[in-house]
Amino acid sequence: MTAASKENESMAKFDSTTAPSLKSWVESANAADCEFPIQSLPYGVFKTGDSAPRVGVAIGDRILDLAVLAEAGLLKCEAGVFAQPRLNDFIALGRTVWRGVREQISALLSHENQALQGNAGLREKALVAQADASMLLPVEVPGYTDFYSSKEHATNVGALFRDPKNALLPNWSELPIGYNGRASSVIVSGTPVRRPNGQIKLPDQERPIFGACRKLDIELETGFIVGVPNALGEPIPCEEAEQHIFGMVLLNDWSARDLQAWEYVPLGPFNAKTFATSISPWIVTMDALEPFRTAQPAQSPEPLPYLRHAGEHAFDIQLEALLKPQGKAEATTLAHTNFKYMYWSMAQQLAHHTVSGCNTRVGDLMGSGTLSGPTRDSLGALLEATLNGREPITLKTGEQRTFIEDGDELTLRGWCQGAGYRVGFGVCTGTILPAHLVK
Amino acid sequence: MTAASKENESMAKFDSTTAPSLKSWVESANAADCEFPIQSLPYGVFKTGDSAPRVGVAIGDRILDLAVLAEAGLLKCEAGVFAQPRLNDFIALGRTVWRGVREQISALLSHENQALQGNAGLREKALVAQADASMLLPVEVPGYTDFYSSKEHATNVGALFRDPKNALLPNWSELPIGYNGRASSVIVSGTPVRRPNGQIKLPDQERPIFGACRKLDIELETGFIVGVPNALGEPIPCEEAEQHIFGMVLLNDWSARDLQAWEYVPLGPFNAKTFATSISPWIVTMDALEPFRTAQPAQSPEPLPYLRHAGEHAFDIQLEALLKPQGKAEATTLAHTNFKYMYWSMAQQLAHHTVSGCNTRVGDLMGSGTLSGPTRDSLGALLEATLNGREPITLKTGEQRTFIEDGDELTLRGWCQGAGYRVGFGVCTGTILPAHLVK
Repeated sequence: MTAASKENESMAKFDSTTAPSLKSWVESANAADCEFPIQSLPYGVFKTGDSAPRVGVAIGDRILDLAVLAEAGLLKCEAGVFAQPRLNDFIALGRTVWRGVREQISALLSHENQALQGNAGLREKALVAQADASMLLPVEVPGYTDFYSSKEHATNVGALFRDPKNALLPNWSELPIGYNGRASSVIVSGTPVRRPNGQIKLPDQERPIFGACRKLDIELETGFIVGVPNALGEPIPCEEAEQHIFGMVLLNDWSARDLQAWEYVPLGPFNAKTFATSISPWIVTMDALEPFRTAQPAQSPEPLPYLRHAGEHAFDIQLEALLKPQGKAEATTLAHTNFKYMYWSMAQQLAHHTVSGCNTRVGDLMGSGTLSGPTRDSLGALLEATLNGREPITLKTGEQRTFIEDGDELTLRGWCQGAGYRVGFGVCTGTILPAHLVK
Repeated sequence: MTAASKENESMAKFDSTTAPSLKSWVESANAADCEFPIQSLPYGVFKTGDSAPRVGVAIGDRILDLAVLAEAGLLKCEAGVFAQPRLNDFIALGRTVWRGVREQISALLSHENQALQGNAGLREKALVAQADASMLLPVEVPGYTDFYSSKEHATNVGALFRDPKNALLPNWSELPIGYNGRASSVIVSGTPVRRPNGQIKLPDQERPIFGACRKLDIELETGFIVGVPNALGEPIPCEEAEQHIFGMVLLNDWSARDLQAWEYVPLGPFNAKTFATSISPWIVTMDALEPFRTAQPAQSPEPLPYLRHAGEHAFDIQLEALLKPQGKAEATTLAHTNFKYMYWSMAQQLAHHTVSGCNTRVGDLMGSGTLSGPTRDSLGALLEATLNGREPITLKTGEQRTFIEDGDELTLRGWCQGAGYRVGFGVCTGTILPAHLVK
């Protein structure tokens, strides 16, 4: 263990901001099923009415406006980083600042603290109802990488797209397979998703046709946000990699399976994934996730030395995907799985990504890959759950689905269950608009 | 042909800035072999000494400082766009502005014009010797996409990496295969390139080893820069796609072939390409390239309707790759090829990229893919030229090469040959530093 990771561990151990007993004077934050208790304090960017976008922290059913707090002198930080339409400038200040700001906010919101609680005018201004706010993309994403680190998902997809007998390729167990995604089309939860057009190769036709995707799918993922970048040519060691991570989001890597099957050999998925990638608006910091640290799956063969790290590097995050047809009130759970099933840790992903010398930048988004679990009800993509459309799912509303239909609303949820409180990720949602007509 | 492309064609036809007879009062620009004559006027970002980076245009052996000209009132444009460390703000102003600025610069530099020529003080300040300037990355690159559009290259690589009998996959002839590259590691010509470490699967060993790349290679490419972006969900029609392009650069897509062979199935190249992508500092605009328009290779089967465009959409750009060993004076030409061999046009690439609804941004870089020609001396990668290392190349200095060695300097060159003048791209060069020692 390096000195840096020892320091990290000891900081985590004595972190008063995650004590289960902590309560807030924002009453809605204290309910056992509240997604945003005082132990969580995720960061986002929001606006209300015609106001400029700014940085806030979710607490109960409110948003704490950090720009207002900073301006009032109640929150010490570099000037101006919260009066911004994105978190990048704040994140770039580094771990010590993240930590200091978290401690200040935790103190300000804690039950007995009167600094904000006792100032009715400022309290009114600084606490915005989430219901009144629009959430924006929390970071500008300079680079988006998507990994493929669930063994169950890689095995299922390999069996469907290639060879059931050799579903997992030999390289998969040696390195966290990943590819560069399209950063421009990363969108915030709530943004509608237009069904893509593209080339589809039907089995009974010689040439591909061009038209609307017929196999539109979700990928239930999480993503992490790079907070401390590395320079070109200077890899991040695996033992230190977690300290480069600012926090995590839910991520839906929308996928056009028919476009993908035709285009992906030999250079990987392209148009099948470039039309939209949705992320949740709240970034849950690694500090808030620390109490939910757990062991990742046993790795065999033992990874090469550059991919080794001592200790536990998974997190116990429950994940769900839900589908609600247009005009219906009831959503059906498509999958219930857990982030801890991920074979390659985030630290291993980041170490591998940079071992070539590849540089990262503040705000880079790294997707986990579809997080499927070992059981039938834990499959994070319809491709797997319906066996590429061969076995439809029956929704609670009685309708059937093989893939996503126009008007369907897809929602991801995620949370960590603590003792009497829950650290939630909120939702990552998107509704499908029909494809543009082909002229 | 749409109204927009008609207008475009007629503008090009009567473009006085590309007349072969045009001469400049900057004498070095008038030599028949000068890369930067008055017909060219490529854009770059440069600095001298401790001065702030700013936008300039190459003319002869000089750089015309556009920030100085604008400040002096000799160049009309939006305030401040030239006193910038990148071209994005200027490019974002759109085609009419590009055109107007080009015409103003052409007039100011033309033989008889006295506005700058006759003002000794300003002339001194506005004309900087290229030898005294450092060139910087000309654009901030929000997204980097690399295509694979040379039929010869795709066939050669398919034969080496997969199956010589079915080297070209069925999808290749139907769509411009491409993948998302890593934008963070796009660097300007002259930046040294660190040999990457990574996983290498040797044929005689069960598991991969970790170490320095042994098959470091170039890819001789060009790239185009997106100037007019499209919004998410709004594809760019093929007929209009060229009008979204600001200009072209030389591009060396450095590749670690051993890393690539092991990692690339099923999601495409990743660490094999993310350590560096070099581009030339000068962006040659589409206006300067217009006289060199020519036909692309015949396409069979006829592309699907969304990939069709009337007229000629290739450009006659001669390309060369050279290798100079450390400490040697003489470089050896590895390849001499031509951009016009590219099967899928830039317009088709951009139309395909966006047909899913994928959005682009100003400054996006789109690589052609390795541009190999039909002959043995026109292969744009050592992988092809040495048959994956089986047949070494003998350099003029007597040394042999299968792949690149530490200290080697690799240079790409490109030019269009006009009647008595040549529109050059300058060079795209990089020298290889040894890999970091594996601990």
